[in-house]
Amino acid sequence: MKSKTNLPNATAERIPMYYRYLNMLAASQVQRIKSQELSKLIHIPSATIRRDFSCFGELGRSGYGYDVQFLKETFAKVLNVNKLEKIALIGVGNLGQALIRNNFRRNPNLKITIAFEQNETLIDTIFNGVPIYSMALLRQKIQENEITTAISTVPSAHAGKIMPLLDEAGIRSVLNFAPERLKTPQHMMIRYIDLTSELQTLIYLSDREAENQVLSGVDQS
Amino acid sequence: MKSKTNLPNATAERIPMYYRYLNMLAASQVQRIKSQELSKLIHIPSATIRRDFSCFGELGRSGYGYDVQFLKETFAKVLNVNKLEKIALIGVGNLGQALIRNNFRRNPNLKITIAFEQNETLIDTIFNGVPIYSMALLRQKIQENEITTAISTVPSAHAGKIMPLLDEAGIRSVLNFAPERLKTPQHMMIRYIDLTSELQTLIYLSDREAENQVLSGVDQS
Repeated sequence: MKSKTNLPNATAERIPMYYRYLNMLAASQVQRIKSQELSKLIHIPSATIRRDFSCFGELGRSGYGYDVQFLKETFAKVLNVNKLEKIALIGVGNLGQALIRNNFRRNPNLKITIAFEQNETLIDTIFNGVPIYSMALLRQKIQENEITTAISTVPSAHAGKIMPLLDEAGIRSVLNFAPERLKTPQHMMIRYIDLTSELQTLIYLSDREAENQVLSGVDQS
Repeated sequence: MKSKTNLPNATAERIPMYYRYLNMLAASQVQRIKSQELSKLIHIPSATIRRDFSCFGELGRSGYGYDVQFLKETFAKVLNVNKLEKIALIGVGNLGQALIRNNFRRNPNLKITIAFEQNETLIDTIFNGVPIYSMALLRQKIQENEITTAISTVPSAHAGKIMPLLDEAGIRSVLNFAPERLKTPQHMMIRYIDLTSELQTLIYLSDREAENQVLSGVDQS
């Protein structure tokens, strides 16, 4: 098996999805699956799946398929799913509240356990089981709870000021819902969720697809 | 300029971000920018930026940089930002309400204009200016409003049943917040927002980074 260090980033990004589907397959008592069958389920080319899986050694045999249980356990180890990952939420507006209400309930090892907000009516309340603190307590509470992962819903204009504070508090990774790219503190990794860009790309690709159908003279309607 | 058809998908995915930054630069009266400078702002390698921009012909001169206004206009055309894109929202729970409240306000051409929900207390109300209809009116209202883009916050268990209905109503592209991959109707394009996978990937990459620092004996703290 390649060490964690050598796994290509693109492969790393697909592992959560593989893991989810392997869980579903295992729950449905499926014992073996071929890359072509998995490809149909998750819409990733079977060659990509075989290449990704080969990073973990000989997990399957030609014509026989992959052992679902074994794959599932392999990816569970890679993703460290047996370790509870406590998450700090910064910003409890509409989106923040939606995130707390959902709170990754289908993944019991991911859990928003504390939140921070500057709206005084929310500070010192408990929202769906999650205590909300003032921003002044950010460092203290994150350190007390030994949290290293945060989700920020703070708007772009303020997100840049928050990151150094999170860094000082010991946060190592941030999922950021403000799309503007920030100067990342040395030890920190930031991933951006950019709904506007996703939507613009979707509309562009869809328009192009429609244009192609017209150009190729194929009307499948 | 390459036709829409020939633009690589990876380039297409970066255009919304380029466009956002070019707008910011233009608003700050920046007239020219070099790929290296843009690279620092948006954290994309300058070689990638030059390759992406080269798809649109000779937009820059060596040592001189790119004309911000011209690039901005080029990408505005690609993204068709002067056309109002009306969006139907399916599912007005916590996340749906957060989306309506935000409603892409920084992109005036993207706008959720109608929504559908099965919760009876919300049906036939107007939420932040957006009328909410029953699912029974899905087809009629989408067709009346000539909408081809939808955002679905419907949970995985029900999302599969929604897609054929959207297809019949004339929807061509869907941004889907339920992560399970769906069988896509022939004319439809679906893009998935998968927050759990994003978070798992982030934690994996961050753990790997920390491990690498230990392995390489470099402690930068």
